[in-house]
Amino acid sequence: MVHVNVILFNGFETLDAFGPVEIIGKMPKLYHLDYYSLHGGQIVSSDLVPVCTKPFFQISTGGILLIPGGMATRSLVHDADFIHALKGIALNAEFVLSVCTGSALLAKTGLLDGRRATSNKTAFDWVESVNTNVHWEREARWVVDGNTYTSSGVSAGMDMALGFISDKHGYDTAVRIANDIEYLWNSDRANDPFAR
Amino acid sequence: MVHVNVILFNGFETLDAFGPVEIIGKMPKLYHLDYYSLHGGQIVSSDLVPVCTKPFFQISTGGILLIPGGMATRSLVHDADFIHALKGIALNAEFVLSVCTGSALLAKTGLLDGRRATSNKTAFDWVESVNTNVHWEREARWVVDGNTYTSSGVSAGMDMALGFISDKHGYDTAVRIANDIEYLWNSDRANDPFAR
Repeated sequence: MVHVNVILFNGFETLDAFGPVEIIGKMPKLYHLDYYSLHGGQIVSSDLVPVCTKPFFQISTGGILLIPGGMATRSLVHDADFIHALKGIALNAEFVLSVCTGSALLAKTGLLDGRRATSNKTAFDWVESVNTNVHWEREARWVVDGNTYTSSGVSAGMDMALGFISDKHGYDTAVRIANDIEYLWNSDRANDPFAR
Repeated sequence: MVHVNVILFNGFETLDAFGPVEIIGKMPKLYHLDYYSLHGGQIVSSDLVPVCTKPFFQISTGGILLIPGGMATRSLVHDADFIHALKGIALNAEFVLSVCTGSALLAKTGLLDGRRATSNKTAFDWVESVNTNVHWEREARWVVDGNTYTSSGVSAGMDMALGFISDKHGYDTAVRIANDIEYLWNSDRANDPFAR
């Protein structure tokens, strides 16, 4: 059983987290989903969803890290405690997936230095400014480099999650999950209708 | 401020609730989102998301009711207390929106009798059997009849939510929200790629 550790913080963008969760959760025999925040306790999303979380220190080594974005990341990149803790968790993860401006948080840890990555198109200039040592790709639905998957804005996280499932378990498995949830998967990560 | 009351129960399908929530939440000056369950307390979704909820009795009259689906609805239609309480809330709501097999719960209350409605395509025969007095439409991304909006499976709830925003606030507003969250909106409710 692979642990999927979803990182939450107040103001996280709801669908950034729960879009990929819906998809990865369709393989419950392989992946176990858990929800964490820096100190644990109740976290409230951009759309006021109150989620009960466990504290970061309970995250075990390995597994998959999922980092959502949201407006709250604008201040969170300046929270040294959060970024330091996130770096520790991300270093120990087998794969790190970020959605939207979640890549700004990951970039701030330094772990994207020299790697290709993408982010939300309307926040791109800001994300780029967080760390210029990242090879930011402005036109991409999602980007894979090594063990990092970064996606464009919000809904692109669902396409990326299906891409991750496809890479690990085959294209047919990803298509089956997309069909089960009646989702029209944009399966070409280079095709970014929102880049312009 | 219009209250959007999201009805949760153990095993609700994560995206059924949080897809529409992501969209309606993009108009925070008009809509206030709240999360309820029959008795309140922690509710866990199909993908193990633990959500803190308030009890049904705290729901005020009027507003919009959002009912997700999920495998859990198969037993929930037989929970007389839940269905009775849901009927009371739905009767007092200005609009009722359901996603996926959430329409089976709504159908069980009798409030869809004589109305057109749809549901998840892979669960359609079962949903139909819950109440044959509903005019079930097998090929529809979502269906509007009076004050009820019912959508097809999981992701169709996002298309329906954008359709609801379009009906209330204009097509351009819905397109703006879809673009903000980088979502390719399937805006034709009659176009159902998963019906066959």
